[in-house]
Amino acid sequence: MYSPQIRKLIDLFSKFPTVGPRTAARFVFYLLGVPKEGIRELTSAVSNLREKVKLCNFCFKSFEGEGELCEICRDPRRDKSLICVVEKEIDMIPIEKTKKYQGLYFILGGTISTLKKEDIKKIKAEELLERTKKPEVKEVILALNPTTEGEATLLYLERLLKPLNKKITRLGRGLPLGAELEYADEETLGSALEGRK
Amino acid sequence: MYSPQIRKLIDLFSKFPTVGPRTAARFVFYLLGVPKEGIRELTSAVSNLREKVKLCNFCFKSFEGEGELCEICRDPRRDKSLICVVEKEIDMIPIEKTKKYQGLYFILGGTISTLKKEDIKKIKAEELLERTKKPEVKEVILALNPTTEGEATLLYLERLLKPLNKKITRLGRGLPLGAELEYADEETLGSALEGRK
Amino acid sequence: MYSPQIRKLIDLFSKFPTVGPRTAARFVFYLLGVPKEGIRELTSAVSNLREKVKLCNFCFKSFEGEGELCEICRDPRRDKSLICVVEKEIDMIPIEKTKKYQGLYFILGGTISTLKKEDIKKIKAEELLERTKKPEVKEVILALNPTTEGEATLLYLERLLKPLNKKITRLGRGLPLGAELEYADEETLGSALEGRK
Amino acid sequence: MYSPQIRKLIDLFSKFPTVGPRTAARFVFYLLGVPKEGIRELTSAVSNLREKVKLCNFCFKSFEGEGELCEICRDPRRDKSLICVVEKEIDMIPIEKTKKYQGLYFILGGTISTLKKEDIKKIKAEELLERTKKPEVKEVILALNPTTEGEATLLYLERLLKPLNKKITRLGRGLPLGAELEYADEETLGSALEGRK
Repeated sequence: MYSPQIRKLIDLFSKFPTVGPRTAARFVFYLLGVPKEGIRELTSAVSNLREKVKLCNFCFKSFEGEGELCEICRDPRRDKSLICVVEKEIDMIPIEKTKKYQGLYFILGGTISTLKKEDIKKIKAEELLERTKKPEVKEVILALNPTTEGEATLLYLERLLKPLNKKITRLGRGLPLGAELEYADEETLGSALEGRK
Repeated sequence: MYSPQIRKLIDLFSKFPTVGPRTAARFVFYLLGVPKEGIRELTSAVSNLREKVKLCNFCFKSFEGEGELCEICRDPRRDKSLICVVEKEIDMIPIEKTKKYQGLYFILGGTISTLKKEDIKKIKAEELLERTKKPEVKEVILALNPTTEGEATLLYLERLLKPLNKKITRLGRGLPLGAELEYADEETLGSALEGRK
Repeated sequence: MYSPQIRKLIDLFSKFPTVGPRTAARFVFYLLGVPKEGIRELTSAVSNLREKVKLCNFCFKSFEGEGELCEICRDPRRDKSLICVVEKEIDMIPIEKTKKYQGLYFILGGTISTLKKEDIKKIKAEELLERTKKPEVKEVILALNPTTEGEATLLYLERLLKPLNKKITRLGRGLPLGAELEYADEETLGSALEGRK
Repeated sequence: MYSPQIRKLIDLFSKFPTVGPRTAARFVFYLLGVPKEGIRELTSAVSNLREKVKLCNFCFKSFEGEGELCEICRDPRRDKSLICVVEKEIDMIPIEKTKKYQGLYFILGGTISTLKKEDIKKIKAEELLERTKKPEVKEVILALNPTTEGEATLLYLERLLKPLNKKITRLGRGLPLGAELEYADEETLGSALEGRK
């Protein structure tokens, strides 16, 4: 029913995370109602994104401006002895919001579900190994999701970094805010019991 | 935490229907990983949308190609005596899928919640009145959502079109596929009883 | 972990509709906290239910009091020429609430998914046939859920009652209150189009 | 619409946890279909509950059989130096399932949201104080839900037990199994960072 141009844009939007064909169609009809100027603003913002935004040479976070390091890696107040490894850039935001972390980050770029070479190549494991070797680094926090894939990746990285003899930690497991014991899974509750204080 | 360029694009995506700032951020990080060529494909598809896609002179549906009428209004097999009024273009799709409608459409462009002039100006009521006056038009189906706003718009249009002395109908109310009587509201069930056959 | 008496009651409550073992356990712990008098009130209400409550000889609705007919079947103001067939007693409530139905009811006692004899025996098809034969009955409304099972039962009953040459109707299909065209299924929308008025 | 006996039982079932009038009605209609024997089984199980089931003199857990202590408090293999305080009996189950706890329990019987006397009387704070005074008790784990009410109760109990100079602990906070950093609240993530190991 859709014309070719609309069809094409629906296909492209359908590749966006969380977007299915129905939502993609709604995006297209929304754009049909946006004035020309708004369209230009959007397309130039999308084009500029890749031109203006660089990835940090140390942690792979996106940033704008001069130099090769992002604003966090450049910040003299950040503690260079700590590296917090996250799966993706967006995971840094809740950690920054806690205001309880003052170290550096490292964006792994994904997780692995097998130990196959092709799988491992997709994450920045080699780069992490290299960063961890730096003498100033004392602790690497593997802040990966407590999911099956996050667990598998965590185990792989622990083994990879072990020979460096640095402190390798993982996030504490336990009951989150608002949880109810009655519905807690055994593993989480077991960790909450062991981690009591 | 986000750089200005990312911030800007998050703001623009947040205006998309159903998209909040968190999803908008995911879109931006997704785009940061799309190769240059993909970015160009997307921006040109967005730009072309407004240049290639026109709105039909009769029904306001979007279409591409020559002429001033969309492929439905141009189709000699469609029944010109019937106009089905929908709130927005996307509502035409499920109707076309029923394969039970062979008339024309008219996209109202919105609904009204008050009878204030500014409110009424937002919908294409005048244009609908004009189309309905055409001698070949015998019935106007007001296919608006059975919601409070849809109802209000329906009442307004019924009064507007009444002097033309044409058949003005609305969609049948009743139980949808998969419904359970036990949970049906009284109004719907009342309509289902009255509309029994 | 539970003691035998608690275990047993959890098992019995787990047979209640919509109740799983976890909710059943919550019921038991709730009862452990109810004073003796409250327990006696509950058990006597449950026991009395079956002793005091009878099923109507005509429509199978539950009722209390003298005679063999429920308060609806006894009511001289109800229209005896109309029978509304529902799957279960609870389905009568939303119909009564519409205040648009003044006929009698008939509780089928279930639905069928196959035409196997054992399946058909579970519903009161024979009894319905007999009631429908009464000369005063002019219309039978098959008010079954528009679900797969409801449809199958409806088709079976239509065929069963057809030889009697009475009016057999079903509830009108269409869009329920609050629905949105955009998300309507084709069958429902097709019915809503056909049932326009 | 319902007869008095049904109405009464709906009211009684509506007091059950998680049960509203609609579900209560379904329970009643379910019972109307249960054979006499099943009804007798249910009412005697409910009556026996209060007669056969006792509350443990130490931890207030329900149990059957001889003596004044439940099977856990009686069990010589359980570690008498540890008391795990839970809000309600059902909270013991996931803890037992972890198989990581071998101490005793104490069922508080509720939580408090204010420090008003009437509020505090509803929980077994005095009894807990007494149990904690026993010389063999070395640690009290306050295993309350990490909710606002659980927190308030926890603070109250910590202050109450403090003068006894025993180890008072609370469950570890952190990310539960299956959580995603991206959606974690700041307090939980802050605890997960501090509790890293």
